[in-house]
Amino acid sequence: MFKKISIFGVGLIGGSFALALKKAGAVDRVFGVGRSAAPLARAKELGIIDVASASVGEAVAAADLILVAAPVAQTEAILASIAPHLQQGTVVTDAGSTKSDVVEAARKALGGKIAQFVPGHPIAGREQNGPDAAIVDLYVGKKTVITQLPENSEHDVARVAQAWQQCGAIIHKLSPAEHDRVFAAVSHLPHLLAYALVDDIARKPHADLLFQYAASGFRDFTRIAGSSPEMWRDISLANHVALLAELDAYMAQLAQLRGLLAERNGAGIEAVYANAQRARQNWIRTIEAAEQQSNQGGD
Amino acid sequence: MFKKISIFGVGLIGGSFALALKKAGAVDRVFGVGRSAAPLARAKELGIIDVASASVGEAVAAADLILVAAPVAQTEAILASIAPHLQQGTVVTDAGSTKSDVVEAARKALGGKIAQFVPGHPIAGREQNGPDAAIVDLYVGKKTVITQLPENSEHDVARVAQAWQQCGAIIHKLSPAEHDRVFAAVSHLPHLLAYALVDDIARKPHADLLFQYAASGFRDFTRIAGSSPEMWRDISLANHVALLAELDAYMAQLAQLRGLLAERNGAGIEAVYANAQRARQNWIRTIEAAEQQSNQGGD
Repeated sequence: MFKKISIFGVGLIGGSFALALKKAGAVDRVFGVGRSAAPLARAKELGIIDVASASVGEAVAAADLILVAAPVAQTEAILASIAPHLQQGTVVTDAGSTKSDVVEAARKALGGKIAQFVPGHPIAGREQNGPDAAIVDLYVGKKTVITQLPENSEHDVARVAQAWQQCGAIIHKLSPAEHDRVFAAVSHLPHLLAYALVDDIARKPHADLLFQYAASGFRDFTRIAGSSPEMWRDISLANHVALLAELDAYMAQLAQLRGLLAERNGAGIEAVYANAQRARQNWIRTIEAAEQQSNQGGD
Repeated sequence: MFKKISIFGVGLIGGSFALALKKAGAVDRVFGVGRSAAPLARAKELGIIDVASASVGEAVAAADLILVAAPVAQTEAILASIAPHLQQGTVVTDAGSTKSDVVEAARKALGGKIAQFVPGHPIAGREQNGPDAAIVDLYVGKKTVITQLPENSEHDVARVAQAWQQCGAIIHKLSPAEHDRVFAAVSHLPHLLAYALVDDIARKPHADLLFQYAASGFRDFTRIAGSSPEMWRDISLANHVALLAELDAYMAQLAQLRGLLAERNGAGIEAVYANAQRARQNWIRTIEAAEQQSNQGGD
């Protein structure tokens, strides 16, 4: 049971965290903090928070848990504003999509209090944003990755893990660097590739003709190019080292496929396509088996 | 009204064409032709065809319309088998995803009878194949592109168009070269890119770890990598000239984005992402408006 939780950024991610913990009866009072008054007032109206905090000091004082759920580019400034008020016994966590940069920012902002910061990343989202997008079951059955620091106490890590579990999430642990390499490959690179394709087509002189014939395959392939450009600019920059490595590997792969295509090497092309189809089918089967198991567990 | 239609390849595409024309009361008898007996027997059982043809000669004789709906790599051999039996008054069309190569194959196979071949491409599909996958409304509201030849009579083109319209399709016209450039950009390239990404990830030593964290964005982005490797090998080879041109443009785009990322140029990255998001949102709005209009028109 948490007596007081404070959330910096009461949008989709922070708001859904609060709603889930309230539903689980796991928290007494939720304080919200934000740069502008309107979303805070709306979050209070929606029952996401109990108090729209007038100051950072008020929100931080005697909090059991603080969640930073603002855009990643704001993490350092928010943690720096928290630092002077941060007392022993309070655990701070975050929900950022990148972790190495967040840890670096946290070390700068929190200094000697870094042990109190347990970095996290819930793997869940929706296309909408803001407090109105928050839903109670956003995290049910989803993964939350905790990228524990050497300075963290096991007790603090367990409290953060417990909060996410009470939201319905499944806890995974990776190092910050592992986390960033994994998500560069399976999330950040696909976003960059989808944005690149749509931009490439949109700049062609006959773009209108092309879009006219784009069908459902194109729609699914480019769905992630509908995401927030500001958010993905920040993620791309924050994780640029791992993302560049994945992009280079992919460009080498394309160069090889281009060679096969130029020499009309049907067997070579088919080998790549067939390996991809097989790997994707295996992956989908694993997901579906896990979903079925988790549904049965829920009965 | 067509008295006799013959279909070479009674799978998803050919079977759905037959079912739709039968439902519209637009055809008297449908003959099916195929390389193996089992799918033909199944198509007859399902009411897709009336006659499982014993010979190409029987199927072609006195047919009003012949649809070649087999894998594109078989087009030339099928048309060559049709040619000696082809009488005046019969129109031949196809459903291949590429058109320049089909036209080249048709010129070789049909020679002086090329005027009777009106190339087509229905823009519709499902993940399943074979006669059991055929559905009566596969083409409703979908586009069929006709890539008319200079030799075609307007009368023959109109008959092919009419058959597809009776299936519920909307007729578009492009030249074979235009068609292939358009679909290289909006369909063939995205397939190649999705296969390349999944293959790239699957070959990494930590592939299992990566797939464990792949989520819904990755699932949609790679859905088309679940398609038939043989079919997409054939399409890639058949349309390799246009596909190489699109792939080169995309690789240049990636090289430019790589440069922006390496120099941590946030404004440059955001400009690409924002342009893509805007273009995609406009495209989705256009699709949704068209769907709404076509729903209203159907009332």
